[in-house]
Amino acid sequence: MLNANQNCNIGFVGLGVMGKNLALNLADHGYRVAGFDLDPHKIQDVLQTEAAERLDTTAAPRIIGCHDLTSMLASLVKPRVIVVLVPAGKPVDIVCRNLIAAGLESDDIVVDCGNSQWTDTIRREAEYKEHFKFFGTAVSGGEVGARFGPSLMPGGDADSWKYLQPMWEAVAAKIGQDGQPIVSNVPGKPVTEGEPCTAYLGPNGAGHYVKMVHNGIEYADMQLICEAYHLLRALLGYEPEEIGKLFAKWNQGILNSYLVEITADILQQYDQTTGAPLVDMILDSAGQKGTGRWTSISATQMGVPAGIISESVYARALSTLTHEREMAAGKLTADVESGDIEAADVEKAIEEALYCAKICAYAQGFQLLRAAQAEYDWVLDFSTIAKIWRGGCIIRASFLQKIADAFDENHELENLLLNDYFADAMDTKQAGLRKAVVLAAQSGIPTPSFFSALAYFDGYRSEVLPANLLQAQRDYFGAHTYERVDAEPGQKFHTFWQEEGRPERKA
Amino acid sequence: MLNANQNCNIGFVGLGVMGKNLALNLADHGYRVAGFDLDPHKIQDVLQTEAAERLDTTAAPRIIGCHDLTSMLASLVKPRVIVVLVPAGKPVDIVCRNLIAAGLESDDIVVDCGNSQWTDTIRREAEYKEHFKFFGTAVSGGEVGARFGPSLMPGGDADSWKYLQPMWEAVAAKIGQDGQPIVSNVPGKPVTEGEPCTAYLGPNGAGHYVKMVHNGIEYADMQLICEAYHLLRALLGYEPEEIGKLFAKWNQGILNSYLVEITADILQQYDQTTGAPLVDMILDSAGQKGTGRWTSISATQMGVPAGIISESVYARALSTLTHEREMAAGKLTADVESGDIEAADVEKAIEEALYCAKICAYAQGFQLLRAAQAEYDWVLDFSTIAKIWRGGCIIRASFLQKIADAFDENHELENLLLNDYFADAMDTKQAGLRKAVVLAAQSGIPTPSFFSALAYFDGYRSEVLPANLLQAQRDYFGAHTYERVDAEPGQKFHTFWQEEGRPERKA
Repeated sequence: MLNANQNCNIGFVGLGVMGKNLALNLADHGYRVAGFDLDPHKIQDVLQTEAAERLDTTAAPRIIGCHDLTSMLASLVKPRVIVVLVPAGKPVDIVCRNLIAAGLESDDIVVDCGNSQWTDTIRREAEYKEHFKFFGTAVSGGEVGARFGPSLMPGGDADSWKYLQPMWEAVAAKIGQDGQPIVSNVPGKPVTEGEPCTAYLGPNGAGHYVKMVHNGIEYADMQLICEAYHLLRALLGYEPEEIGKLFAKWNQGILNSYLVEITADILQQYDQTTGAPLVDMILDSAGQKGTGRWTSISATQMGVPAGIISESVYARALSTLTHEREMAAGKLTADVESGDIEAADVEKAIEEALYCAKICAYAQGFQLLRAAQAEYDWVLDFSTIAKIWRGGCIIRASFLQKIADAFDENHELENLLLNDYFADAMDTKQAGLRKAVVLAAQSGIPTPSFFSALAYFDGYRSEVLPANLLQAQRDYFGAHTYERVDAEPGQKFHTFWQEEGRPERKA
Repeated sequence: MLNANQNCNIGFVGLGVMGKNLALNLADHGYRVAGFDLDPHKIQDVLQTEAAERLDTTAAPRIIGCHDLTSMLASLVKPRVIVVLVPAGKPVDIVCRNLIAAGLESDDIVVDCGNSQWTDTIRREAEYKEHFKFFGTAVSGGEVGARFGPSLMPGGDADSWKYLQPMWEAVAAKIGQDGQPIVSNVPGKPVTEGEPCTAYLGPNGAGHYVKMVHNGIEYADMQLICEAYHLLRALLGYEPEEIGKLFAKWNQGILNSYLVEITADILQQYDQTTGAPLVDMILDSAGQKGTGRWTSISATQMGVPAGIISESVYARALSTLTHEREMAAGKLTADVESGDIEAADVEKAIEEALYCAKICAYAQGFQLLRAAQAEYDWVLDFSTIAKIWRGGCIIRASFLQKIADAFDENHELENLLLNDYFADAMDTKQAGLRKAVVLAAQSGIPTPSFFSALAYFDGYRSEVLPANLLQAQRDYFGAHTYERVDAEPGQKFHTFWQEEGRPERKA
């Protein structure tokens, strides 16, 4: 394997599917990559793929393999930029220490492109300051995104950004004039025009936090789509293919998004073995890798109402209780009505419900980013965040342009629901969400995230909530005191409830 | 102040309202208490109260004040039992270290009766093992409970329990033959008969964890009551007093509970200044001290669906966004129907809804305990836990006897909803919950916890959930694989979705 003085632009530690694809993506954009992995086969694999994909067979390899970190460091131009793509957690710190041992210098840059928790990125940036510049960049878009254009969410040392910016902007997904992603999945023929789906988001953990919220929103998006599918199937008796075609139609309208697009595709596919709709052969037990949980927990810790995201996380948890649900299905009967419903009305209601609930889910996600900004002293540009989500990532949707517009219009916007465009959308389409909730409740179809979305919308627009009674209860049993509507904010009152005697209206 | 060789049975560090009341409670039961507080006035206060309350004025003081920890230790019989009632967190560890410095011995017992997080209790038991026996006991019931009979949730070193048991059983709330609490709020005349609301729950953090879940359930109970009140007021235009009388009536039936009782009392009280219903003078911004958050976070971490509890925590968070809600109220219009509703039907529906949702909230709470038992290697007796919640604590309700019965009938019961009594209750009353959800959705009244309860019930009894589509989506964009309904559990499948070509039904 080559390894000496190759003047490579960037090094990779970890050549699993994400590392391999991101390295090939960089190579397509003319960057020379030095790759290392503990597993020599992974190194061979990326070298062979690069060779096979190289259009000019006479040209030199664009990726070289290194048999250790020292030789990798030797083959990089300074300041060295090393991408680490290993499992989140301890492995990242082990690689960092090994890189220090291998002779990393203080102005070299180590970029963690894994699914690290933002708190680890905050810690690492401080912990390794003396030795090198630690930088975080969250990558969204899965294998295909990494290979042909991901959404990149960078956070870390501002000075280091200038070294990363050209590379990140080159490999990131691109958005055309029409606000739609420009896609080319052809090796060696990368997209070179358009607005890149990456931007510097802030110091230390900002990038990984933004990616976490992206995933939290993704959990909600997916769950809402599943509930819409469930309602269509249970209420109207549609077959998956029929529902898939409906999603394909919806994908041409306000719901246009990657997740709706692949849902349409999934539902129209059949199992080659049984001939049944493929979705019906898949066990209804959903896995999760943790970022949804982190989002829900962060929201709870900061006191940001994010019920749609949390209910979506719980829905996956409930789905795994297969055995219990089977017992319950035999034991718990449903007392439901089946009123007469008009298919066209139901379709329209569910499309509107999906759109309204999606707006509420994104409103919660951006509320969370706003809270995190205060919590961690970041200055987040919400418009930019919406823009870099328009392509490459799983939640990409034309809808995100509207979110970017909303924050461009008012950078201090407290909640998406307070923006004219979204307020009007909720105004004209909430009837569909209400109808979907009513139909679900009457027919016994579980739609926790639709329910939570409507409760959030109605709660947020409530000038008066029954929390006055709740605060009275707290004062009654715990002397927690309360504020009065006719007194200065912050002024506390306590009632000796049991001594008040029976009620008497004052004369 | 006296301090030497008083042969006191128990010491107190921290004589704030909870410490003071628990000490007076012990004194009423014939135990001699040695009290210390950094604030001499607090010491004086408890001594004066004890003297004033002492029925036999010629008798010796039952509580003595100590001017430091050393003299307090000197005045205790061995092994010494010292209750620590200081703010949760660092203060507890500071007191522990000071007690070690003051000469605590290895078989002495330090009991943390504060609102500590269970993880701290687990850590402390291990950390202080060498020096003394650290024991946790969560106290529920507020000031009054501490004074005249709390629900005590002890967890820690099993050998130490024999020293605490007689004292804890003496001061705890008592349940009579009828399953109802026996109450006497007269100083010096404690309740001495009945079944005590305390029992050894398990090692280290078991007691504090059980108390945390109690509080999580309490959050749900309170929120559900508030939503019922909100619906009655908004749908039927009832005045608080009218609703209070209805709650008083409900308190005679299946909803009989402390929280429903005090709600009835609160709603029938008027503001002495304005003559308005007192609840209307209270700002609708609910505080929280963290245990609800902890419960929600623990559920999320362990993957236990606890949406009702989480939505209740979020509802408090949303209530504090007063300014945003005012803006939203002016901006977001409600597109709602006002169908013709029969007051009596609505009342009945909401009573049933409250009962059904309450069952679901308790089901979630006990699911959480079941998961924690596995997570922390505890052996929790769910029947006993339900029994010690029947009196003294905030969620006390006759309903808890039914929960105890359910777990007595089957200690391995996976979920309360699978018990005949509760399954029948849901069977006969779910119509009310469905109606409440429908009315709330149609009329724009936010009832997040009612919504979440119905979604939980319908989800739990669903043999098939749309998680099959969700898992297909995950496999589509992330190659996360899926299991098949017709294959061995654990066997993973992956579809190359984009290569499947257009759908074709197999011949």
